[in-house]
Amino acid sequence: METTRYKIIIQYDGTNFSGFQIQPHDRTVQGDIEKALKIMTKGIEIKIQGSGRTDSGVHALGQVIHFDYPIQMPIANMKRALNSLTTDEIEVCDVEIVSEDFHARYLTTGKKYQYRVDTNKDTNPFKRLYTKHHQYPINMEALQQALKDIEGTHDFTSFCASNSGRENKVRTVYEASVVQDAANGELIFTFRGNGFLYNMVRIFIGTLLQIANGRRPADDMKRLLEVKDRNQAGPTAAPQGLYLVEVYYDLEEATKGTAFYTPETKKMGVN
Amino acid sequence: METTRYKIIIQYDGTNFSGFQIQPHDRTVQGDIEKALKIMTKGIEIKIQGSGRTDSGVHALGQVIHFDYPIQMPIANMKRALNSLTTDEIEVCDVEIVSEDFHARYLTTGKKYQYRVDTNKDTNPFKRLYTKHHQYPINMEALQQALKDIEGTHDFTSFCASNSGRENKVRTVYEASVVQDAANGELIFTFRGNGFLYNMVRIFIGTLLQIANGRRPADDMKRLLEVKDRNQAGPTAAPQGLYLVEVYYDLEEATKGTAFYTPETKKMGVN
Repeated sequence: METTRYKIIIQYDGTNFSGFQIQPHDRTVQGDIEKALKIMTKGIEIKIQGSGRTDSGVHALGQVIHFDYPIQMPIANMKRALNSLTTDEIEVCDVEIVSEDFHARYLTTGKKYQYRVDTNKDTNPFKRLYTKHHQYPINMEALQQALKDIEGTHDFTSFCASNSGRENKVRTVYEASVVQDAANGELIFTFRGNGFLYNMVRIFIGTLLQIANGRRPADDMKRLLEVKDRNQAGPTAAPQGLYLVEVYYDLEEATKGTAFYTPETKKMGVN
Repeated sequence: METTRYKIIIQYDGTNFSGFQIQPHDRTVQGDIEKALKIMTKGIEIKIQGSGRTDSGVHALGQVIHFDYPIQMPIANMKRALNSLTTDEIEVCDVEIVSEDFHARYLTTGKKYQYRVDTNKDTNPFKRLYTKHHQYPINMEALQQALKDIEGTHDFTSFCASNSGRENKVRTVYEASVVQDAANGELIFTFRGNGFLYNMVRIFIGTLLQIANGRRPADDMKRLLEVKDRNQAGPTAAPQGLYLVEVYYDLEEATKGTAFYTPETKKMGVN
């Protein structure tokens, strides 16, 4: 059957979902979107493909999915239909018709995550689902050094949930940075890389906050990358501070503004 | 029995509560706090008194309550105990020991409410519980005129839920204003007054947005105040945009920065 491939960028509030990926008994983002598509096609089951999973409670500002639709529907209609058949927890931001060669997962050249830490003394009821609360003193200098140590190509075994089955734990982190949002009393961490292991960003944060507190030396990241032992790294930080911000399909976009960007990067193609 | 009166300022995310006031079968803010107090006193039932109710889904940044506690506990301990025995949806911000003369409801000299309207074209999953989405053109000049017409002492019958049993519908609105938060694509409305009728702010917003759209003339507020008919005003806007921001117990504080403030105001005392 002739089908049309759609690439779609979505945002979601992960609070009430058991993550992105479809589950037999729990509500998931993929499950809700596939249900909407089934209504639109009057019963045809369409499987969507995401750029990757997000865990329960993790949010997305720019998750990318693709699927093959039985007819060619104008992109504005596709956007409107999906938005009206899903709850306000999911927002379809952008719809594009792409060639059959496009694949939301296999063709990624990188991803960007952010993690919000609320450093105000008191907890804020309006941030409880959207930040991690951490009211301890922050040594910014130690934090910056530790972030620098994360950047580059390393074996990130120490920062991968130990129940993960993946073999190759080598990834390249293009950017690991933090900014202080003084108005909101928050630290906003940004991580850009060619790929991320299971729970990698959340274990980075759990470890970085211990370094920022002085509970670990500022150069502990270097040691942790060496020892390749999950048990020596910090805890897995709570999911609600984590946002999948952007998924890249072009290496120039993925590395732009980082030390890993060169005018030749684009020609390297997908890695 | 000798008791100590506590005045407490709380914030809450109203999303998962059936309003402030205790209900036999539903979860409420008052119910959660009274449960925490019962645990603290090992079984003594303490009734709390709020400055007023808030409806289901309405938020508070500065709700005030008082209650009488059987022993005099240091304020820091009271704050810590209540925060640890309630969920993160409620935050006790400030605790004060007050005289037996203080009353959270009867002694108010005014309240401040805000209402957030998200005017971005697309809905935002992260604002769905905290703003009203309204993607239509806004005539700021008409809006400003209508807000000016609200200020002052009027019979607000047209802006009171018709099932309300209150007799006297005359209130003084000290401030009715709006600012544009361009960075977030929001309109933030502020209302300060000596008291508010049931659903008054939400009916203001439902009517004001029709004026801003050009669906009502800019001077329609004047007419609505005259006709004293709830059916001629606009709809009751959704609860999730509404915040109880501050409760005043001093007339100078309540009117500060408005045309209703005079150096003599304070001497007028409670009205």
